Amino acid sequence: MAGDQAMSKTGILYGVGVGPGDPELMTVKAWRLISSAGTIAYLSANGSDSTARAIASPFIDPDTDEIIIDMPMRVERAPAQAAYADAARRIAARLVDGEDVVMLCEGDPFFYGSFMYVFERLSETFKCVVVPGVTSISAASAAIGHPLVARDEVLKVLPATMDADHLLAELSTTSAAAIIKVGRHFGKVKSILSRLNLVYDATAITRATHSDQTVRSVAEIDEDSLPYFTTIIVRQAAKR
Amino acid sequence: MAGDQAMSKTGILYGVGVGPGDPELMTVKAWRLISSAGTIAYLSANGSDSTARAIASPFIDPDTDEIIIDMPMRVERAPAQAAYADAARRIAARLVDGEDVVMLCEGDPFFYGSFMYVFERLSETFKCVVVPGVTSISAASAAIGHPLVARDEVLKVLPATMDADHLLAELSTTSAAAIIKVGRHFGKVKSILSRLNLVYDATAITRATHSDQTVRSVAEIDEDSLPYFTTIIVRQAAKR
Repeated sequence: MAGDQAMSKTGILYGVGVGPGDPELMTVKAWRLISSAGTIAYLSANGSDSTARAIASPFIDPDTDEIIIDMPMRVERAPAQAAYADAARRIAARLVDGEDVVMLCEGDPFFYGSFMYVFERLSETFKCVVVPGVTSISAASAAIGHPLVARDEVLKVLPATMDADHLLAELSTTSAAAIIKVGRHFGKVKSILSRLNLVYDATAITRATHSDQTVRSVAEIDEDSLPYFTTIIVRQAAKR
Repeated sequence: MAGDQAMSKTGILYGVGVGPGDPELMTVKAWRLISSAGTIAYLSANGSDSTARAIASPFIDPDTDEIIIDMPMRVERAPAQAAYADAARRIAARLVDGEDVVMLCEGDPFFYGSFMYVFERLSETFKCVVVPGVTSISAASAAIGHPLVARDEVLKVLPATMDADHLLAELSTTSAAAIIKVGRHFGKVKSILSRLNLVYDATAITRATHSDQTVRSVAEIDEDSLPYFTTIIVRQAAKR
C-alpha cells in the first residue's frame, strides 16, 4: 500500500533563489536543496552560460541531471513563450515520474524572476515550493554601505524601461528608490535624476557581489549605456 | 613586526541579516559568520526575547559572548537613541580590542533595519561589513505562492504608518505593493484598499516563514488591528 502510494506520488517543483551573485549569499535551504537535487533546471540566454547555474555551481553534484532552458533573447515575446512552454513540458515529465525538480533562479524567484513563467504553467497541476532569496537590491545597498530605506520611508523599485514622465513622477515623490534593469536606459535615467537634482544622491552598482562588481557615483558616469544588471540606488540626502 | 601589526588591528563589525524567520532562510555567509563568532550582538525589545537571536539560535555556539542591546519600545525617540549610543560604545570597546562583532539583524540589515542606528555611529571609525539577507517581503510572496512583481512593473514598499492620503495616492498608481508594519494601522489600510477596489487583491501575511505564520485574505479580516510584523501584499489582478 505504502509502495503504491509512493509510486503514484508526483514530484515537487522547487523555485529556488540563488541570491545576487556571491555563492555564499545563497540561503542554507537553497544550498541543501541544490546539493541534494536529482534534477536541476535553469535558463540559458542565447546559448550562453547561465548566471544562476554559475552562482550555484560550487554546490551542484556532478551526477545531478540538468534541464537547460534555452532562452532566445529577442524583443518579440512569442519565441520566449514557446521556450517556457517547452521547459514546462520537460519539467512536468519529471514531476509526473515522481522526481523533484529544483529550478535555479537568480536573486529571488518572485522578484522580477522568470521563474514565474514556468510557475504559472505548472502550479495548478503540481506542488510548487518557492524558496525566497537575497535580491540584487539588498546586495546593492550592502555593496555601497548605505541603508537602502529606514523608519517610515517609502521605497520604490522602478524598472529603467519605464517612460520618462512616469519615472520622473515616481522619483519626485520618494526619498528612496532602486532603479533596476538600467542597461541602455542609463542616459534617460541620468537626465531625469539631473532634472530632480538627485544625481549626487545616486549610485550605480553593476553585478553586485559578483567578483566583477562595480560601484560608481552616477554623477561621474558619462556613458549612455551600462550593463543590464545595473541597479541605481537613490537616497535623497536631505531626507536621510 | 607582523605581531605588532596584528596587535594594533581593530576588529570588524558585521551587520548580518538572519532572514525572515525560518533559520534555513539565513544565507550560508550568515551561518558561517554566526557559528564562528566570538561575540554576537542583538536587540532585545523591552527585555523580551530577541527575534533575531531566536532565528539564529540553531547556529550559535554556547561559548559565544553576547552583547544584548535592551531597547525601550516607546514613542519618544530619546530613550532608544540612548540605548543605541550605549550599544555602540560596548561594541566599539570590543572592536578596539581587535575582536570582531557579529550583529544579528532580522531580515536584511539595510532594509528598514535598526542596524543602521549602530552602523551610523561606528562606520566612520571601524570597518563595517553588511551581509544582506532575505526580506520579509520576499518571504511573504513565497508564502502566498504568487509572484510579487514581474516584467516592467513598479513595486512600492509602503509603511502602514503613512497618512491615509499619501498611502492612497501611492497605492492608486502601482500594480504591486507591499504594505509593511501593519499592526494597529490595519483598519485604515483596509478602508483605503476598499476605496481603491483592491481589497480582493490583497493578502495579509503575519510572521512569514516563522512556525506560527498566518496567511489571510484582507477581505476576510474584520479586526481593526493585526500584529506589527504583518505585511500586506497587493497585486492588481487586472495588471497581472
